[in-house]
Amino acid sequence: MTSIHSSPDQASATLLIHCPDSKGIVATVSEFIYRNNGNITNLDQHVDVKRKVFFMRIQWELRNFIIPDDKIGEYFDTLIAKKFDMQWQLHFSHEVPNMAVFVSKQSHCLYDILSRWRSQEIEVNIPLIISNHPELEPIARQFGIDFHCFEINGLNKQEQEQAQLRLLAEHQIEFIVLARYMQILSEPFIGHYANRIINIHHSFLPAFPGAKPYHSAFERGVKVIGATSHYVTKELDAGPIIAQDIIRVSHADSVEDLIRKGRDLEKVILSRSIWHHLQRQILVYQNQTVVFS
Amino acid sequence: MTSIHSSPDQASATLLIHCPDSKGIVATVSEFIYRNNGNITNLDQHVDVKRKVFFMRIQWELRNFIIPDDKIGEYFDTLIAKKFDMQWQLHFSHEVPNMAVFVSKQSHCLYDILSRWRSQEIEVNIPLIISNHPELEPIARQFGIDFHCFEINGLNKQEQEQAQLRLLAEHQIEFIVLARYMQILSEPFIGHYANRIINIHHSFLPAFPGAKPYHSAFERGVKVIGATSHYVTKELDAGPIIAQDIIRVSHADSVEDLIRKGRDLEKVILSRSIWHHLQRQILVYQNQTVVFS
Amino acid sequence: MTSIHSSPDQASATLLIHCPDSKGIVATVSEFIYRNNGNITNLDQHVDVKRKVFFMRIQWELRNFIIPDDKIGEYFDTLIAKKFDMQWQLHFSHEVPNMAVFVSKQSHCLYDILSRWRSQEIEVNIPLIISNHPELEPIARQFGIDFHCFEINGLNKQEQEQAQLRLLAEHQIEFIVLARYMQILSEPFIGHYANRIINIHHSFLPAFPGAKPYHSAFERGVKVIGATSHYVTKELDAGPIIAQDIIRVSHADSVEDLIRKGRDLEKVILSRSIWHHLQRQILVYQNQTVVFS
Amino acid sequence: MTSIHSSPDQASATLLIHCPDSKGIVATVSEFIYRNNGNITNLDQHVDVKRKVFFMRIQWELRNFIIPDDKIGEYFDTLIAKKFDMQWQLHFSHEVPNMAVFVSKQSHCLYDILSRWRSQEIEVNIPLIISNHPELEPIARQFGIDFHCFEINGLNKQEQEQAQLRLLAEHQIEFIVLARYMQILSEPFIGHYANRIINIHHSFLPAFPGAKPYHSAFERGVKVIGATSHYVTKELDAGPIIAQDIIRVSHADSVEDLIRKGRDLEKVILSRSIWHHLQRQILVYQNQTVVFS
Repeated sequence: MTSIHSSPDQASATLLIHCPDSKGIVATVSEFIYRNNGNITNLDQHVDVKRKVFFMRIQWELRNFIIPDDKIGEYFDTLIAKKFDMQWQLHFSHEVPNMAVFVSKQSHCLYDILSRWRSQEIEVNIPLIISNHPELEPIARQFGIDFHCFEINGLNKQEQEQAQLRLLAEHQIEFIVLARYMQILSEPFIGHYANRIINIHHSFLPAFPGAKPYHSAFERGVKVIGATSHYVTKELDAGPIIAQDIIRVSHADSVEDLIRKGRDLEKVILSRSIWHHLQRQILVYQNQTVVFS
Repeated sequence: MTSIHSSPDQASATLLIHCPDSKGIVATVSEFIYRNNGNITNLDQHVDVKRKVFFMRIQWELRNFIIPDDKIGEYFDTLIAKKFDMQWQLHFSHEVPNMAVFVSKQSHCLYDILSRWRSQEIEVNIPLIISNHPELEPIARQFGIDFHCFEINGLNKQEQEQAQLRLLAEHQIEFIVLARYMQILSEPFIGHYANRIINIHHSFLPAFPGAKPYHSAFERGVKVIGATSHYVTKELDAGPIIAQDIIRVSHADSVEDLIRKGRDLEKVILSRSIWHHLQRQILVYQNQTVVFS
Repeated sequence: MTSIHSSPDQASATLLIHCPDSKGIVATVSEFIYRNNGNITNLDQHVDVKRKVFFMRIQWELRNFIIPDDKIGEYFDTLIAKKFDMQWQLHFSHEVPNMAVFVSKQSHCLYDILSRWRSQEIEVNIPLIISNHPELEPIARQFGIDFHCFEINGLNKQEQEQAQLRLLAEHQIEFIVLARYMQILSEPFIGHYANRIINIHHSFLPAFPGAKPYHSAFERGVKVIGATSHYVTKELDAGPIIAQDIIRVSHADSVEDLIRKGRDLEKVILSRSIWHHLQRQILVYQNQTVVFS
Repeated sequence: MTSIHSSPDQASATLLIHCPDSKGIVATVSEFIYRNNGNITNLDQHVDVKRKVFFMRIQWELRNFIIPDDKIGEYFDTLIAKKFDMQWQLHFSHEVPNMAVFVSKQSHCLYDILSRWRSQEIEVNIPLIISNHPELEPIARQFGIDFHCFEINGLNKQEQEQAQLRLLAEHQIEFIVLARYMQILSEPFIGHYANRIINIHHSFLPAFPGAKPYHSAFERGVKVIGATSHYVTKELDAGPIIAQDIIRVSHADSVEDLIRKGRDLEKVILSRSIWHHLQRQILVYQNQTVVFS
């Protein structure tokens, strides 16, 4: 799902771990890196005291590391992970993942993502944009990215999603970003990309889930509106939250003002979440995220 | 419900108005003040375009105003309000209102209010503090304010509220502040103080109404917590919102951290709402507020 | 400097006024609109008590307004402005102004402006982009806008600015946006566009004026970084401030992180300021702004 | 400088370390805790890449820890610190430090600190309050704390500071909080409490250092005001920053409004900094702080 990118000299590895909490995990893992000649550049850990779960992100420079890249996972699993009953992921900085963007008719999140990608703020491949409407095709063309339109109605949803999944597999897509994609994904579809679909919801969840949150916020007379990015799960707008932010509003703001102001939140929060995902800073556990940033 | 305070020389009057929208309201009202020799120091207006309602706050210096204070209401009603079908309130800066504070066991909001009162940041009389628990009596004593404890159980709620209401009437209380008062007020009680009871709820409403919102926020894994001040209505935590604010949290925050961080929000927002109320900046219409600030 | 755009039926006029404070201004101006059959949709006023200056923004629907558009200014000046010694501007919602964007090598502000323009969030004409470097020409081409490169060195600055001014005049440019344009404009150039050049400075002014503010902020160990939009005056980074905002940082953020996080501030604040300018919400007086929003 | 407080069963130790960066520090330190039967509950580390300095905060439960409390420092220094050329501090959760509060005439920060202390939000001893004015003595009395007034003029500053220092030594004061103390401390005085005097400055430093920052902010027409807490160094308002925050203001705010809104910032940020200091979350290095929170 990735292409090789950075030069090996600056390359680093990142391990994301969670396991039942017990003594000695930090010591054991850091000692493993150290003894094999790795220089730790970042170490974050968190203990969920209530659930007795340990979380860790550790990043180290690969230059001079004794274990070859393609053996690190195996060695770590054998020597350490099994002992502590760990769930773990290993990522390399020189592997650039493939990301698909799903859109509908609104362009602000798409523009924001593509301008960050074009200016190399985010290091990611974007082989394709998928939509259920044709409106944003010109933007895809502007940025030289393939655009695939799958119009969805009451009858064709299952087969359209199957076609989308084939396309995603073909392009070895690692994760999906729903950039204001206004179509609910089916449970089977989500199952293929568990904790790998990032959505932006235009409210401060759990307030105002579902459709037309700005209209609901306006009706309720709130003084602050928000936006929430989260991984998509089968329950609508209820997946693990990655990031949230808010902006102040007043009685003087119309629904249209809320929508306009909210767009700035949506795009910035969604792009910030893509950043965290790409930096391998996010761990998911039981519908919550640990974001080491 | 007030005592005379400021010297007449610096005195000002504030009119709060709402009425069906139509042409000429601003011109007519401002001309009324102007012609009678009043100097307008503040004028805010808002049109609720959807509901076609006009809102206005106008403040002017009373020095040299031709109409005597105790006749302004009558003249305004006769000459202007009736013509536009206005609801209006008139307030004078030299009348200092009486406020009652209701508390339970937590002290942070109470301390915050009393320290602002003592340092004269807010100009208000606080003749009494009411509680359903005895714990905070020492603070009332520290500040020299009468403390009345009404313990409430399943059987005595109605008669205790009656006793409270008598006490409030006796002290000519204009408005009530629930400073983390953990007891639901009955509908009849609320009816006596419509839009004159300010509550602080420790969540970003409409998210997490009811009990233990910080625990719910923690369970949901939110990245931002909030607090909301509102006027109390019969529907729990659903009254017109006055002010809201938020603070960022992370996976590293325990429920206790959320509670601790939330206290700073609660006290600042509640006190800010008291400020707006005392400045006569708030208009309520159909479960929403217009806050001219 | 504008092109006709909206249909006359929804058209409105906006008056921006400032003058020495005195009694009766609100009454007189609103009465002028009312008597001539205008429906006031927005009225904001502010009194600078210290300097005794009165500011006002008043917006009304032109449908049925008795005075023809091209005579409103003359009538207002004769009947009212002279009496109160007013400075005033009159704008019509159906006149869409021409804006020039100046850039250097960084693309984030430019992308943000162009995507809002393309999606019609902002109603403005952008006939040309000017730069002192060729790097961003592809973006101009992406959006179909003329790109003019004026490389500037120690010797040619004056003549290059003259050429720029000719080009701006040719395109009837009403106002200029410096979207991270890294070249100081000369005093004569600025003189042609007084209070009509909007700059974004990447710090919380007056902290860190001049070059490399993120590096200075990093050295100082601040916990918050900011960005500031302002009208350009001859004194560098000292013009009237339009908008400011901040983002939290920590010891864990490198200079590169500050630069990355700051970009999101810069683009949102700059675009928000363009919005305010286009809505005719900004009044400038003695190096300060009144922003009625 | 401390009194024993918590029961040993819940007791924990916290080590704050900085040293030249090198491989193996995390592994070595965490292994030291682990091997001696300590359960690490928190570990934070930071590498200042530019200066090549390593920072670490590590907290562990003392129950079952093999090394007795009064020997931990010695063992750690001998076995580990010397090897890595570490600067370190060791703190125990059951040792409650003594804090002195310095005030002048404004009460808001003092009230905020005392109400948090009285409600046990912060675990600290406050044996005395020192002031250069008598005004706040009643508040000290309200809370049952000794109040010492040292009026300072051009002639007596040196001897008054000497008297203050004797008093602080007598009460074994560990750190000092300047809660809007409007008197500049001399360099010798500061030398006795290096990185142990916390000040709150009422601006967003480095903007508006020195006197009357709200007046300067008003004159400059800023749209955001701030407050900054920092450790006091000999250069005025230039010490290492602990925390900063801001609040939005507008043209409608008078200087008095800025002062009033600023008070809420000042007290919350100052108290938050006391919290970080008491949690032993702050490391100072070359005029910057690392705040592990």
